[in-house]
Amino acid sequence: MASYLITGTSRGLGLTLAKLLAAKPKDQVSFIFAAARSKTPALEKLISEFPGRVIFVQLEVTSQEDIMAAVKTVEAALGPDRALDFLINNAGVMPFAVNGISQATDLMHCLEVNVNSIQLVTAAFLPLLRRSGQKTILNISSILGSMGIASRFAAYPVSTYKVSKAAVNALTVQWSLELAKEGFTVIAASPGWLRTDLGGDQADLSVETGAKGTLEILDKATKDDTGKFFDITVPGWDKNAQFNRYEGGELPW
Amino acid sequence: MASYLITGTSRGLGLTLAKLLAAKPKDQVSFIFAAARSKTPALEKLISEFPGRVIFVQLEVTSQEDIMAAVKTVEAALGPDRALDFLINNAGVMPFAVNGISQATDLMHCLEVNVNSIQLVTAAFLPLLRRSGQKTILNISSILGSMGIASRFAAYPVSTYKVSKAAVNALTVQWSLELAKEGFTVIAASPGWLRTDLGGDQADLSVETGAKGTLEILDKATKDDTGKFFDITVPGWDKNAQFNRYEGGELPW
Repeated sequence: MASYLITGTSRGLGLTLAKLLAAKPKDQVSFIFAAARSKTPALEKLISEFPGRVIFVQLEVTSQEDIMAAVKTVEAALGPDRALDFLINNAGVMPFAVNGISQATDLMHCLEVNVNSIQLVTAAFLPLLRRSGQKTILNISSILGSMGIASRFAAYPVSTYKVSKAAVNALTVQWSLELAKEGFTVIAASPGWLRTDLGGDQADLSVETGAKGTLEILDKATKDDTGKFFDITVPGWDKNAQFNRYEGGELPW
Repeated sequence: MASYLITGTSRGLGLTLAKLLAAKPKDQVSFIFAAARSKTPALEKLISEFPGRVIFVQLEVTSQEDIMAAVKTVEAALGPDRALDFLINNAGVMPFAVNGISQATDLMHCLEVNVNSIQLVTAAFLPLLRRSGQKTILNISSILGSMGIASRFAAYPVSTYKVSKAAVNALTVQWSLELAKEGFTVIAASPGWLRTDLGGDQADLSVETGAKGTLEILDKATKDDTGKFFDITVPGWDKNAQFNRYEGGELPW
């Protein structure tokens, strides 16, 4: 019986992760704390289908005030004896920079939402995670944050997002190093290019495929994997594809 | 006859880079634009020793207003025909986070000074760099920003600095990809752990050694090196040392 907190669940990957977890047997998943700035109709529907199991947590991830209130909400629902087992830092933005990095003006915004919010949220929920036997933190990153294969993705016009996701990976590494001695598993994952509001219509995969692949990474991850950056596996996908290959395993930094 | 702009020249590595360049023959180095928040006595002395050659540029790198004024200063000194050949983005901070990443509160500040300032300064000076045949941008990074060998440096209590330097590397990659077609060389370099105010007394190397190694990287770099992350070479340094090895060549991301 594990509890999960997922940020950015109003739509897209975050919402679908919450849905897939909610569909699991009750002896596997106790609570899903669905954090979002506000309840969208889709999130409202999910909450009403799983009353007392999918729990809404109001959270603008850049707001320290919201984060402190979110910790109180989750702490009250868990009670004094239960832990938060899994934290999935999923909330993020992907601003388009069609004129390239030289004309991009949104780097700080992108770093604040995609990187610093993970720092703030993780620090705030650390006491509840420390109670757990699982102690797992998954940061949603992107293959676009990989420097080693950046030239392959040069044409994707989201340069500031790419920089921010490299920083998410570096932040993951720092957290993993600090918390290894406490038995934490802290990993980053690239969920794939998904047909969501963020990914657009031309994306490779349905959001369900990306969410399923992400949960597979989470299910398989052990303490020995801490500090690593994983890609999802999509069986049957072209292993020589020009862009994403979805072969699973570790991605280059 | 090349011109250089170096940020963060009030002391430490930036000041020493300016000194070493000023000591080069006049047929190699025309102007050294020494950018700093304010003139320290040491910088003042250097300027007075090389009047009209080392030129002070008032610049707080986080201030867009300062950056715009700095472009005007440099443009006026160069005149309509000369270019800015080398931009060395050196200004930065290294806040100590002795209680680890989980208690660090300065990530945003570190990202703003170390990462976003490079974005702002480089974008602003791009027109002057485009006039050049050299077209070279060197971002001062750090081996501490490497994710691949992060565990080796886990004990260095500067986690937010490490994340910021990984982001500097990612930013370097994005700029290199965009400007490759124009013949730019955009690289990152780790100048070594230096005995400066930033590096402290216990550091490996004198600031002169680090500055010399950094200029060697700059001298050797060609267009084919764009997007790479280099370490300095220190002849005689233990190649099996626990931390820095100073073997030159590329560092892992």
